[in-house]
Amino acid sequence: MSMRAFVSASLLLLLLRCAQSKYIAYNTTSRVVPGKLNVHLVPHTHDDVGWKKTVDQYYVGSNNTIQGACVQNELDSIVPALLANKDRKFIYAFFQRWWRDQSEQVQNTVKQLVSSGQLEFINGGMCMHDEATTHYIDMIDQTTLGHRFIKEEFGVTPRIGWQIDSFGHSSVQAYLLGAEVGFDSVFFARIDYQDRAKRKAEKTLEVVWRASNSLASSAQIFAGAFPENYGPPNNFHYEVNDDSPIVQDDYNLFDYNVQERVNDFVSAAISQANITRTNHVMWTMGNDFQYQYAHTWFRQLDKFIHYVNQDGRVNALYSTPSIYTDAKHASNDQWPLKTGDFFPYADQINVYWTGYFTSRPALKGYVRMLSGYYLAARQLEFLTGRKKLGPNTDSLAEALAIAQHHDAVTGTERQHVADDYTKRLSAGYTEAKDVVAASLGCMMETPRAASCNSSETKIQQAIPIYHCPLLNISYCPPSEVDLSNGKKLMVVVYNSLGWKRQEVIRVPVVSEDVSVQDSSGREVQSQLLPIMNVTLGIRNYYTLAYLGRSPTVTPKYWLAFTVYVPPLGFNSYIISNAKGKGAAATSERQIMFASERGMNDTVEIGDGNLKLVYSGNDARQVEYINSRSSVKAPLEQSHSFYSGDDGSVDFQASGAYIFRPNVTYPIKYDGKVPLTILRGPLVDEVHQRINSWIYQITRVYKRKEHVEVEFTVGPIPIDDDIGKEVVTQFRTTINNNKTFYTDSNGRDFLKRIRNYREDWDLKVNQPVAGNYYPINLGLYIRDNSTEFSVLVDRPVGGSSIIDGQLELMLHRRLLRDDDKGITEALNETLCVIDDCRGLTIMGKHYLRIDPSGEGAKWRRTFGQEIYSPLLLAFTEQGGNDQANSYIPTFSALASSYTLPDNVALITLQELEDRNVLLRLAHLYEIGEDKDLSVMARVELKKLFPDKKMSRIVEHNLSANQEKADMLKRKLVWRVEGPPEGANPVRGGPVDPIELVVELAPMEIRTFVINFGS
Amino acid sequence: MSMRAFVSASLLLLLLRCAQSKYIAYNTTSRVVPGKLNVHLVPHTHDDVGWKKTVDQYYVGSNNTIQGACVQNELDSIVPALLANKDRKFIYAFFQRWWRDQSEQVQNTVKQLVSSGQLEFINGGMCMHDEATTHYIDMIDQTTLGHRFIKEEFGVTPRIGWQIDSFGHSSVQAYLLGAEVGFDSVFFARIDYQDRAKRKAEKTLEVVWRASNSLASSAQIFAGAFPENYGPPNNFHYEVNDDSPIVQDDYNLFDYNVQERVNDFVSAAISQANITRTNHVMWTMGNDFQYQYAHTWFRQLDKFIHYVNQDGRVNALYSTPSIYTDAKHASNDQWPLKTGDFFPYADQINVYWTGYFTSRPALKGYVRMLSGYYLAARQLEFLTGRKKLGPNTDSLAEALAIAQHHDAVTGTERQHVADDYTKRLSAGYTEAKDVVAASLGCMMETPRAASCNSSETKIQQAIPIYHCPLLNISYCPPSEVDLSNGKKLMVVVYNSLGWKRQEVIRVPVVSEDVSVQDSSGREVQSQLLPIMNVTLGIRNYYTLAYLGRSPTVTPKYWLAFTVYVPPLGFNSYIISNAKGKGAAATSERQIMFASERGMNDTVEIGDGNLKLVYSGNDARQVEYINSRSSVKAPLEQSHSFYSGDDGSVDFQASGAYIFRPNVTYPIKYDGKVPLTILRGPLVDEVHQRINSWIYQITRVYKRKEHVEVEFTVGPIPIDDDIGKEVVTQFRTTINNNKTFYTDSNGRDFLKRIRNYREDWDLKVNQPVAGNYYPINLGLYIRDNSTEFSVLVDRPVGGSSIIDGQLELMLHRRLLRDDDKGITEALNETLCVIDDCRGLTIMGKHYLRIDPSGEGAKWRRTFGQEIYSPLLLAFTEQGGNDQANSYIPTFSALASSYTLPDNVALITLQELEDRNVLLRLAHLYEIGEDKDLSVMARVELKKLFPDKKMSRIVEHNLSANQEKADMLKRKLVWRVEGPPEGANPVRGGPVDPIELVVELAPMEIRTFVINFGS
Repeated sequence: MSMRAFVSASLLLLLLRCAQSKYIAYNTTSRVVPGKLNVHLVPHTHDDVGWKKTVDQYYVGSNNTIQGACVQNELDSIVPALLANKDRKFIYAFFQRWWRDQSEQVQNTVKQLVSSGQLEFINGGMCMHDEATTHYIDMIDQTTLGHRFIKEEFGVTPRIGWQIDSFGHSSVQAYLLGAEVGFDSVFFARIDYQDRAKRKAEKTLEVVWRASNSLASSAQIFAGAFPENYGPPNNFHYEVNDDSPIVQDDYNLFDYNVQERVNDFVSAAISQANITRTNHVMWTMGNDFQYQYAHTWFRQLDKFIHYVNQDGRVNALYSTPSIYTDAKHASNDQWPLKTGDFFPYADQINVYWTGYFTSRPALKGYVRMLSGYYLAARQLEFLTGRKKLGPNTDSLAEALAIAQHHDAVTGTERQHVADDYTKRLSAGYTEAKDVVAASLGCMMETPRAASCNSSETKIQQAIPIYHCPLLNISYCPPSEVDLSNGKKLMVVVYNSLGWKRQEVIRVPVVSEDVSVQDSSGREVQSQLLPIMNVTLGIRNYYTLAYLGRSPTVTPKYWLAFTVYVPPLGFNSYIISNAKGKGAAATSERQIMFASERGMNDTVEIGDGNLKLVYSGNDARQVEYINSRSSVKAPLEQSHSFYSGDDGSVDFQASGAYIFRPNVTYPIKYDGKVPLTILRGPLVDEVHQRINSWIYQITRVYKRKEHVEVEFTVGPIPIDDDIGKEVVTQFRTTINNNKTFYTDSNGRDFLKRIRNYREDWDLKVNQPVAGNYYPINLGLYIRDNSTEFSVLVDRPVGGSSIIDGQLELMLHRRLLRDDDKGITEALNETLCVIDDCRGLTIMGKHYLRIDPSGEGAKWRRTFGQEIYSPLLLAFTEQGGNDQANSYIPTFSALASSYTLPDNVALITLQELEDRNVLLRLAHLYEIGEDKDLSVMARVELKKLFPDKKMSRIVEHNLSANQEKADMLKRKLVWRVEGPPEGANPVRGGPVDPIELVVELAPMEIRTFVINFGS
Repeated sequence: MSMRAFVSASLLLLLLRCAQSKYIAYNTTSRVVPGKLNVHLVPHTHDDVGWKKTVDQYYVGSNNTIQGACVQNELDSIVPALLANKDRKFIYAFFQRWWRDQSEQVQNTVKQLVSSGQLEFINGGMCMHDEATTHYIDMIDQTTLGHRFIKEEFGVTPRIGWQIDSFGHSSVQAYLLGAEVGFDSVFFARIDYQDRAKRKAEKTLEVVWRASNSLASSAQIFAGAFPENYGPPNNFHYEVNDDSPIVQDDYNLFDYNVQERVNDFVSAAISQANITRTNHVMWTMGNDFQYQYAHTWFRQLDKFIHYVNQDGRVNALYSTPSIYTDAKHASNDQWPLKTGDFFPYADQINVYWTGYFTSRPALKGYVRMLSGYYLAARQLEFLTGRKKLGPNTDSLAEALAIAQHHDAVTGTERQHVADDYTKRLSAGYTEAKDVVAASLGCMMETPRAASCNSSETKIQQAIPIYHCPLLNISYCPPSEVDLSNGKKLMVVVYNSLGWKRQEVIRVPVVSEDVSVQDSSGREVQSQLLPIMNVTLGIRNYYTLAYLGRSPTVTPKYWLAFTVYVPPLGFNSYIISNAKGKGAAATSERQIMFASERGMNDTVEIGDGNLKLVYSGNDARQVEYINSRSSVKAPLEQSHSFYSGDDGSVDFQASGAYIFRPNVTYPIKYDGKVPLTILRGPLVDEVHQRINSWIYQITRVYKRKEHVEVEFTVGPIPIDDDIGKEVVTQFRTTINNNKTFYTDSNGRDFLKRIRNYREDWDLKVNQPVAGNYYPINLGLYIRDNSTEFSVLVDRPVGGSSIIDGQLELMLHRRLLRDDDKGITEALNETLCVIDDCRGLTIMGKHYLRIDPSGEGAKWRRTFGQEIYSPLLLAFTEQGGNDQANSYIPTFSALASSYTLPDNVALITLQELEDRNVLLRLAHLYEIGEDKDLSVMARVELKKLFPDKKMSRIVEHNLSANQEKADMLKRKLVWRVEGPPEGANPVRGGPVDPIELVVELAPMEIRTFVINFGS
């Protein structure tokens, strides 16, 4: 046969229908059409600021072997695509890097696109932060950074929250980073699959979310969950080389399919309309790292709009979430009410995204540590004035902002990406500590150097200030000096809280012959605690790993002493050689007890109100006795690990995202191993080796009423090829009836009920993983008589799996990828040359048992102290002459003024033009504490006693608009059901003369203050 | 450890080097710098007009599941990328579809880019045609189509041949489609790996290629083979999501790598310079379907040029092959001489790209058939005038042009793509046959309808003309009519050659009572041959498969009769019912002999000069006897198949591209199966069933001196899971001493020596596949006494594997992919509903044995007849009245004028504005024939006797520039070695009065003639 395929004549008709195709001008001018089903096509791209590649690699498009993605391409191509058709719209984040690479001409073009509404900034933070493992202060800071950048460059304020990829959604996100920021709505994709199914059936994917019990309707927001994910409907994907059918509208070519594609479009629209209220549906036309060549998308969207509207059954239009939100609002419908949050998140049966609450505890701890440091550093930057030259806190700000991303602090990135975040944080810290050093140096100097007072010159630092960022592993060269030659060490202790503090601090020293004096020369009581071999082992290995060199000296003791620090200020202490001084001047030497226990011997520690009595039979069993509050309660601690599922059953392994426990293995504790007891005048310590890779120190301070538990976990062994998720349980006799409370981003406490969801009838398939919640501040249980609280030093997953108990995850080491994209197991190691070990982590829990209803005071107050630990700085002191030439103590507040107990200063930051950003936060919810859940008052004149406030303007939370403007613009939403009871309470306006700020429970108020000269 | 990775201070330096990045204006203005190594960066994309996807799918970017590729994207993004930087350049093909989709504004922009040289058309044909399986007339036509489009739209003429992907390179490409087109150079990537290695070592990748023995230095061209492939050097790929390291020049981001990348660049440049003459190297910056988002490439190229030139060791510049060629030329160096061609091509050991010479024989046959049809259709279109309305030959032109692509007629595309080419060809044919019908109808009409003479009106066809495209499978409804009711059938026979022809044609008829009259009413001798069941089986199956319906009648006979047709004209014959006429008027009924052979019985056929005597023992053994030329020679035919390697040894399977024979299996022929002999006055036929799936008819025509062998092969069985490559061998006693001759694209014959290459010392690893060559016209062997020629009806692979023998591949059915990209096995099937069978193919070989040195006349003359078979058209004739109202015969030439025997009219085509394109080709090489290898003369006045030629201008081969201009611009290259002997001979200028065209051996001359009124 020499003729292969003569097609029948009918097939040829198609070909011949039109002899010459030509340029088609697509009509894309459509706007919302009342009475029709409107399909809002929202072009967008979802760009992680780090995930499988680092944020820089994503930006420039390097390392494409891992993932083909180049953000630079997107923006480069989106701009001409928008210019090519003024109807096209785009929403964007991840912008700043690109912006600064552009020529002025391009920048001007972009400004026009933004001002015309074609390019809309959405969310507008530096990243799309996570909502489970982030602290609310970090969320505010990163959003502020982004919002103010956009405001400064473009003069616009983002209107819409866009948390499309975060793995579950928090109350704080909704009311604080949503309503209080001034957003009119928030959209997201990831809610529990059972929840989603019910909401689709009941048309309740879109709600009014009233997430704050205290601020209630005054901080509610319209919220929309997408029906599936944040991509387009099936078969409408148009990235370069995507395989959805394109609209082939050239008669001259084969495969003409306009009517077919229009039918597909209409049918997808109607199917979405069937689960959506009002005649508006939104299609999110984009996905991860899309629009690399924006034209590919826009060409198809142009065609769809053109042909679908020619067809006329539905109305397709270029839209944005703002336009969509306005359309929803214009319907004047009533919307279902949503309270609480959207945790935990499962995307299908057995797939609970609760592993990332704990993944990479070291990274999480580092982020939290720097978060508190950043708060303090900005205060110090403000106190001596931000310098135009020299170091500032901006790079730490940016590093911390990016670290809040939902694949950063979450621990759900590849190892090299986690390393990159850490490197950025470290670089930011390195610059910020110079700010701190310069500021402290200036404030201590007298007379103060001229360079300290000018914002134009770099500070010529007279007093050199050193830091010890590795103090947690007992490495602190400044304190490890030989003082026997008369050299003295000054420790400067800065307190970023608005309250006075009295705390025990500790530094490593090389000699037992040391004494401590306060700034007035008075001897201070101190205590020497021997540094254990386990600590030294970690010190040596990690110092070598991090710094590339081993320490040259080995400290023998922790020198502990009590410091008193004024609010928003510092105090200083001198450590010197004690030889030749009287006995009274010498540190009280630590007495080491190795407990010798027979049957029924008990061990008691605690020299103040709080005592712990360890059972002689089993040192995990403790009697908790507070003589002041008359609490006496048994407290049992245990450890165990879950073997992470390896995916062999249904391909779902436990991994960075997913907590999929398989078998629970209790970690046996050999009660016969002697406890090591350290006692002293300031603190008692119990050292326990739980097993070969878990070590624990329990501390009771004489003047504190909580228990501090410091745990060292790792390297988690994996010789058995079993991934392990290590947890600890604290068991009490509290009858909490399945109920426990966990914080939302370190702020509100939410009630949790085991195996129960408020919004739907939960089908329980994962009795552990499905009951895990994110913890940032702490969690507690209670009954009528007592309440038991555990506070944490970093984000972590926790639960109450059986009544009376609280469980917290400590560390995870897993050997399988959990199939959510990173294609790498969460198996953290640290290498010294070729010696790679599983990562060891250290962390702290703080426990307290209170009479029922009295725990909040400690949780709130001590919670702030955890977030803002005392900042230690070191300097050498030569002799007596010099001793008189510095200012040893300082408080920025008016003499004897402190902030009220229920208020924290969460931002104090110099902006530009002598403007200062001030945020004050009420720390209590309505009804949380009988004394403190009340309106608080802050006297600004006493907060800034030496400065003249020429103008003070209240702003929205992210400080990109005046509060009054925000309230004016705000959309009011109608809610189904009975009306709210009492109106939410808020602090009143600030009288410009009195300058007193009122704060209602849970209120945060943001001010921009101008300190005119 | 709460601090994960404090990096050492030195690492941080990088980060802090530059606090703020900003817009960088890259300097890309560099031009060639004498005295430096110049790296010519040539941005390009290689876009197959069909391969794994169809040409339309590639264009619009559909069917991306198979391959992510969208040509539309490329052009859309290249234009703004070029506008963004006027130094950037790009070279392009595959343009026309995009062009017609563009707005006038975009078209104007592109015109500017072309005229400024930023966008350069390269090659400029409609496709990058194959060079092995294409006929030179097709190559010329498709190049002309592209070149004239570019000339008309942009006023430019491509200067450079760019055959970068064709799988081996032909002499005809070099001298005809290169030099004669006016190209200054040709570049390609695919030459034999052994050849390449030697050329790299000897710096002879770049040569002057003198590919024509006859035209010699007058048609030589500068030719460059790339050192590797047509992509960039390793690690310089920058398509969207490619993984080569980008130039990261933002100090503010991590991974800054400018110096490292510059070093990589310089080192790659130097390593290429080490194998290249002059200080110019070219980097082909692109690959298959690249520049989808052109910006990704250009951004990196900008940076390389900027930083490499800052570095200064080498000079990098935006360039094009033109600029590169000019730089090579400017060196005034001498270049090595290359003669012959670059076939066959192996890219590594055992991987010979010689399978595609035969792959998809049905598609190849269809292309060839329509190629000849297109030539005739254009003549007829010219003869009655091209119509502005109504059908024309353009869509056939375009379909044929695209079919010449190196993944089209080659058979190296996916099945659905092959189907698409076929569909396009079929559509083109459908329109072209209307042109033919209208033209013949008009020419036969008398008086001629007014609509025939106006180019403005559509022809109102008075005489309905029908075609029989499926005549080869004996399906021809117009001839299968019942003539018993007095109806008469007129067969119109058109001859597109410039010579008179006398041939036997055949049509199927339903009755034996038929007679044939010529146009003057004289009875014509005819012969009825029974249609065999094997033919009817194929007829029924394939008619159903192609047309979706079974034939309604079954013809009983082939009616064969001799026709006489004038040059460039037609004759007509009437077939009518013979009943009632005398015996003389009746067709001579075929006598069927079933040969009854015992031992030593022989069978003799042939009633004229040529006789074949079949051996009684073995019907494969034949005595070939020509009584006129006194040739008497044994001729033995056999069949066998190679089992295609399944890749199990070294992963290299036989497939669409690759011929990788494993074992040779002779196909046993049962000599006992009786031959079926059909004898008659016009032709004798021997029917042989070789096996259950090979059927063969051998014909000897009374008045012809060659043997016609028609083979039917298929379905090739694959039940044994063995792919098969079916071949036939003809064995003679000629002592050819390893030497044989194969044509180059149907034009020049090249000498081949088994297991030998002229350019290097061949290491033989594939003794069969490595000796295969592409055949388009035929091949022959000779010794001192005789020569044996085989001509073919389509492209096919062939060789002479042992002395005296010629082998031709017939069909291939393979079960494995050969790993060259299509990822589909070459396993052609045809389905009727769910009944899918391996594709059966039919084809013809023509054999002749001549006294040595006398074969050329037949090969050349008969070769033209194969290429241009008589075109048959059918119309009904009612009665005698009507018989007088038409013009029965016609020749466009002056009365009694024919073209000389050594000249063919290869193009006669009406262009626009009454301009006509004329191409005349001398058919003989120097020394090929003692009588005909001489200067030929064509008298244009007799070629166009009725028309006034107001202007005649000689053009280059592709008719996009005047010949004189081309010669003026042409670069002269210096060649190493001794000077050429005699100057090549060419025909002289055409005297405008005499209008005689001289043609030297192998010369083709192209004229644009204006027929003014």
